[in-house]
Amino acid sequence: MKVEFINPFVNSLTRTFETMLNCQIQRGSLVLKHDTGSSYPISGIIGLSGNAVGTIVLSLSEDVAKQAASVMLMTEMKTIDDDVVDAVGELANMVAGAAKVELEKYELSISLPNVVTGPDHHVRFPSDVTPFCVPFDTDFGPMALEVGFAVVGEEVCV
Amino acid sequence: MKVEFINPFVNSLTRTFETMLNCQIQRGSLVLKHDTGSSYPISGIIGLSGNAVGTIVLSLSEDVAKQAASVMLMTEMKTIDDDVVDAVGELANMVAGAAKVELEKYELSISLPNVVTGPDHHVRFPSDVTPFCVPFDTDFGPMALEVGFAVVGEEVCV
Repeated sequence: MKVEFINPFVNSLTRTFETMLNCQIQRGSLVLKHDTGSSYPISGIIGLSGNAVGTIVLSLSEDVAKQAASVMLMTEMKTIDDDVVDAVGELANMVAGAAKVELEKYELSISLPNVVTGPDHHVRFPSDVTPFCVPFDTDFGPMALEVGFAVVGEEVCV
Repeated sequence: MKVEFINPFVNSLTRTFETMLNCQIQRGSLVLKHDTGSSYPISGIIGLSGNAVGTIVLSLSEDVAKQAASVMLMTEMKTIDDDVVDAVGELANMVAGAAKVELEKYELSISLPNVVTGPDHHVRFPSDVTPFCVPFDTDFGPMALEVGFAVVGEEVCV
């Protein structure tokens, strides 16, 4: 996967948390994700396609999901209910939407988000696409962003 | 969601199983999915976008995943390993690819597939999109197809 795909998503995630949620976030080291475990129990998954195909997974701890949803919905969310799930999907949508502007040469469009919940789930990418994983520390708790892409018509490469 | 979105996916899933996997499948009754539980422990998720945005979830029992992968890889698969996960992603890709041809007016393109594993995971759609769920009985075991779509620029409706 080309490294140019990662920064637009890191930037838009940072901007979304800092400006919309008023939450400071600190980026950890980028790693290539070879294992199959999901980082956290709530995953917002959204597909992008056009002249490149990819997906991003926004992997949130329960604390981050609840506190982000609390800010978005302006009411304290105490459990992972449908409203929190919708908020996580909307977060993934915003991150993907802002990032695709920076990747305009790929003419990407965005699918509907799905949100996967469950303490022991694993979100796996195709084995010929090694996703980048970037861990974050935030005021709300830990989270991670996984980005996997392949350019249409080019060989998949890391 | 418009009902016209469901048949292309049901048809392509049926064709894929019957012609490529040589596996007879029998469609159950279409239901609107309001609950949040996933049908089976292996979910192939793939996004489609263009003049409509959607995702499909191919929800497989372990038996179906292993037996489908065994046919595709021409070797008996006994556990849900990376090869089976890739085969499930490729199945979702084929089903989406064949269906988008029938939905050409929406000029859909297809994201990378993700495969979620875990016995107790839940794949949720945005709450303003009620997905159609179609259960299937197959020679390999049970599975289900969930399809959720919204037309860009139109109000989301069921």
